[in-house]
Amino acid sequence: MGTIVENIFSEKFGETARAGDVVLVDVDLAMAQDGTAPLAINAFKQMDMDIAHPERLALIIDHIAPSKSEGASELHIMMREFAREHGIKLYDVGEGVCHQLMLENHVEPGQLVIGADSHTCTYGAVGAFATGVGSTDMAAAFATGKLWFKVPQTIKINLTGQTKQNVSAKDIILKLCKKIEADGALYKALEITGPTTKNLTIPSRATLTNMAIEMGAKTAIIQPDKKAEEFTGAKAPDWVMADDDAEYVREIDIDVSSLEPQIAVPHQVDNVHDITEVEGTKIDQVVLGSCTNGRLEDLEAATRIVSGRQIDDGVRFLVFPASKSVYMDAIDKGVVQTLVDAGATVCNPGCGPCPGTHMGILAPGEKALATTNRNFKGRMGSTEAEVYLGSPETAAYTALNGVITTEDD
Amino acid sequence: MGTIVENIFSEKFGETARAGDVVLVDVDLAMAQDGTAPLAINAFKQMDMDIAHPERLALIIDHIAPSKSEGASELHIMMREFAREHGIKLYDVGEGVCHQLMLENHVEPGQLVIGADSHTCTYGAVGAFATGVGSTDMAAAFATGKLWFKVPQTIKINLTGQTKQNVSAKDIILKLCKKIEADGALYKALEITGPTTKNLTIPSRATLTNMAIEMGAKTAIIQPDKKAEEFTGAKAPDWVMADDDAEYVREIDIDVSSLEPQIAVPHQVDNVHDITEVEGTKIDQVVLGSCTNGRLEDLEAATRIVSGRQIDDGVRFLVFPASKSVYMDAIDKGVVQTLVDAGATVCNPGCGPCPGTHMGILAPGEKALATTNRNFKGRMGSTEAEVYLGSPETAAYTALNGVITTEDD
Repeated sequence: MGTIVENIFSEKFGETARAGDVVLVDVDLAMAQDGTAPLAINAFKQMDMDIAHPERLALIIDHIAPSKSEGASELHIMMREFAREHGIKLYDVGEGVCHQLMLENHVEPGQLVIGADSHTCTYGAVGAFATGVGSTDMAAAFATGKLWFKVPQTIKINLTGQTKQNVSAKDIILKLCKKIEADGALYKALEITGPTTKNLTIPSRATLTNMAIEMGAKTAIIQPDKKAEEFTGAKAPDWVMADDDAEYVREIDIDVSSLEPQIAVPHQVDNVHDITEVEGTKIDQVVLGSCTNGRLEDLEAATRIVSGRQIDDGVRFLVFPASKSVYMDAIDKGVVQTLVDAGATVCNPGCGPCPGTHMGILAPGEKALATTNRNFKGRMGSTEAEVYLGSPETAAYTALNGVITTEDD
Repeated sequence: MGTIVENIFSEKFGETARAGDVVLVDVDLAMAQDGTAPLAINAFKQMDMDIAHPERLALIIDHIAPSKSEGASELHIMMREFAREHGIKLYDVGEGVCHQLMLENHVEPGQLVIGADSHTCTYGAVGAFATGVGSTDMAAAFATGKLWFKVPQTIKINLTGQTKQNVSAKDIILKLCKKIEADGALYKALEITGPTTKNLTIPSRATLTNMAIEMGAKTAIIQPDKKAEEFTGAKAPDWVMADDDAEYVREIDIDVSSLEPQIAVPHQVDNVHDITEVEGTKIDQVVLGSCTNGRLEDLEAATRIVSGRQIDDGVRFLVFPASKSVYMDAIDKGVVQTLVDAGATVCNPGCGPCPGTHMGILAPGEKALATTNRNFKGRMGSTEAEVYLGSPETAAYTALNGVITTEDD
């Protein structure tokens, strides 16, 4: 019997599909952003075919939004024209990060979703099989509505225990990155389960699933429950579950109750240490946001810490809500106001400096603490800059102190 | 007897100074932004002198903030290090546009202020003599606290009448640009007076004075009154006034009561037409903000128009509050929320795309309607793009309709 992923593929394929099987299946949703959509559009145009299911597609302008250059603006125009011509939903400048918009507006439990962005795996938070694909694969999906997949093996992650204060989903997933390592889950799915997972909110689960790709995983998935149904407004089909006798290629138990705040140290996501090992590292820029940690609960977590206080003089504290909906909720709850009062700069919803394109590029020698998902050399600007990854709580304390910490001044 | 400007120079110089006199005077305040401060700092370093009055200086990071490139980030670092080393006030990324921050926090009636930015003339709104200088002049002022000036002749602008609905300060100053033309006030001061001026708020007056440079003027100035004193929290000295028998090189009367909304058409600021002449022009991007029209009353004017409605599908509506203070007030009054509900993207305080550096760069063929102050070829991106200048009211109607208009759909 199957894992969640095998059962989803079996349903889509119409007969039993098991790890290693190669199947051609319908794609329920496909997404491309302004870094990848232009490539997919160009590849599609060379095919001389129609769009199979325009209503299943979304194009999202989030990576360089608002545009910083004529070149980016021209790519945005290409996306707008393509969307208009084919009746495809387009999210323009300022709507938010693609993965957040897909979660908020489109993805449902049990769907098979592809995105021309490596962090598409995020949607496993609501029980979808979702994975990043290349732009030419995306073009093929535009044209046919289908894609070939090799059904991945699954690693089962069992999370138990209650996290300590100032430890949250980001610390859990960083710990898992350390354990599995950057290539430890190549072409495998992570099925994240256990009582800790069940207690997490959907946004916290999205923090976990978002970073599956950092271990090389094809995706991560969490069995949808009432929370997933409420979040998506869609009923989870019965078959979106793992059978009791499902076969896993590996099982990992993590008790999070003694977990300290975790930091991914430059320049690898799996170079993870307890915060105590890097505590006191001087930081120039703190970035709170991204598809990993730009949701309301992330902003609220930071707000609780900085409320009524002032960030360190030596630090820039940049906040990027993951979507307009997050931004408006954060204003409604006074979160934006509290962050700005403390000295933060709240920018428009979008990717911000995470992909290293604009709005917070680091100079040589600068160091950032970011709630984003990658700290590769040069990721946020100079190859001589350093990016440390941590939780919203760590971001807030670091902004207050100007050094990596989760202590008060 | 003297004009306002002559009387300010006489006071600073210590004896009577009249138009044409060349005087060496103390500078009360000096400002440089991230486009100019690095040049000034480099020029200053070559002088091998101390800073005369660090407490009179401000460095402001607003033109590329947050940074879009390593190069910009390195210039920002240079500014931070220079400010720290010399005890100079620095406004970092996200605090706002330099001129708004100077008005909110520093400038007082009767001061002599220089800025390494052409729109420094804005501060005449509170009765300061304020003018833009080159970066090497700025370096000299860093070192000596003084600067040579040739006292300018003054053109007196007498504004009478009450503007019609949807006509505001921006329309008045555009009309004046048309009348005086781009080089019609070279090295002259504009003394803006009359009952209409007296009825304007300080932000509206700043919209007027801001654009003096677009006529080649050295500055514009408005006699400070109770409003200016309340805005600045400083008493206006008795001598900040024009004598009854002051000599003006030219006097211009404008009755604004029949004024229609004005549009500066590409590619010159003085290429100004009644909106009816360009009504219906398709617009891709609407920009509300800048040192000309990014203050609370500007955002409120737009909000009254877009409230409860949706912007046109074909338009991007980018909003840049002029400062954090404006941003926070705009949230407090529900202005940000109403703009976002209508489809706007509210970005961090700063210059936005006005200087053509980032956050809204136009592609070839694109057209923008902006509340900013310049529409030169290539100003907001491509040299094949077009920028139309108008008021916040025109911006709002244009965003709703996707074409230049002040009509409802």
